[in-house]
Amino acid sequence: MQNNTKKALVIFSGGQDSTTCLLQAIHHYGKENVEAVTFQYGQRHAIELEKAQWIANDLGVKQTLIDTSVIKAITTNALMDQSAVISQNADEMPNTFVDGRNALFLLYAAIYAKGQGIHDIITGVCETDFSGYPDCRDVFVKSMNVTLNLAMDYNFNIQTPLMYLDKKQTWALADQLGGLDYVRQHTHTCYLGVEGGCHECPSCKLREKGLNEYLAEKEVRNV
Amino acid sequence: MQNNTKKALVIFSGGQDSTTCLLQAIHHYGKENVEAVTFQYGQRHAIELEKAQWIANDLGVKQTLIDTSVIKAITTNALMDQSAVISQNADEMPNTFVDGRNALFLLYAAIYAKGQGIHDIITGVCETDFSGYPDCRDVFVKSMNVTLNLAMDYNFNIQTPLMYLDKKQTWALADQLGGLDYVRQHTHTCYLGVEGGCHECPSCKLREKGLNEYLAEKEVRNV
Repeated sequence: MQNNTKKALVIFSGGQDSTTCLLQAIHHYGKENVEAVTFQYGQRHAIELEKAQWIANDLGVKQTLIDTSVIKAITTNALMDQSAVISQNADEMPNTFVDGRNALFLLYAAIYAKGQGIHDIITGVCETDFSGYPDCRDVFVKSMNVTLNLAMDYNFNIQTPLMYLDKKQTWALADQLGGLDYVRQHTHTCYLGVEGGCHECPSCKLREKGLNEYLAEKEVRNV
Repeated sequence: MQNNTKKALVIFSGGQDSTTCLLQAIHHYGKENVEAVTFQYGQRHAIELEKAQWIANDLGVKQTLIDTSVIKAITTNALMDQSAVISQNADEMPNTFVDGRNALFLLYAAIYAKGQGIHDIITGVCETDFSGYPDCRDVFVKSMNVTLNLAMDYNFNIQTPLMYLDKKQTWALADQLGGLDYVRQHTHTCYLGVEGGCHECPSCKLREKGLNEYLAEKEVRNV
């Protein structure tokens, strides 16, 4: 069901989650009413940004790049520091955490959205697969929504369609939107930046486990 | 009364308000426990930044500059656009408003503060002299404080010593701290970037009116 009177801005990294959100937004709002915003913050892997640009272009969605790499100057961590070793131990607080990253993304997205007259901001953050990132929690996003509304005297409506989905359910959503193969083929989630995935890092493992579970269930249903 | 076990980070522009906050922080925490953070975001007047650097250096406080000029790419307004005309009509919503500016300052300050183990963040925002800036309101700052604590799983303590002071009271505070002449001589508040003030813009008028009121009262008391 499309609502052509409204516009939406999707926070878009080119990964599985935000690509699924982008496909869903196109479905709900219509392609011409959807914009994507992609952040450059000194990611280790240029491939991530290239994929995001390729997908936005392929789906015909206007994309705005915002450079937040100044964050490198005030905080350091493994996702941004080429010389740092990324922890592969899923039990630890991940050292890929960039303090305040989602707050920064939401704030810049909101500043941009208001300038475009957009109220709906969509982000693929998710607290189901516990990541250890405090700014992926629903309570943070809701608090941020209130804060942004107060900061700019404007009604933002932050949507988190994946908040309570696990990876299997996110694959199911992509499939419902007719995008399972698209997401599988074109999105990039690997922490190590390996084309097609390294199959070893926590991000690849989570993605593949979810996909295998979903495909196994689907096969059972189709028998 | 100094509390040498705690540190504070002051959001410091080099203007009257934040310089008064910096003097107060030095008084409360001790110079060695105070840091300043100054934002560059494409200000019209380089003089503003130079003054801020001069004061921080003069007071012997560590200063960190953070470049948030990327905000220019996503929003435009009179404070940053050399070709725009700054409204001098105090009745209108000021067109010097940068959407989300204080939210951005507080967020970057918080990211930096956490990295330094600092909990107390001090900002000179004030809702008394109604500026029309929604992000100068106390309700915004309190909401932002909660949001930042949730975002980073850390206890920030945002302090706004000037929130309910008018300009006259801010001059009185500077005087109590022994800094009336210092603030008068070294701070820069003029919207038009005139050294020593243009005496015409809303910012100069407000500053001078408050100072004259304070000095008149002080004279009466001293008679």
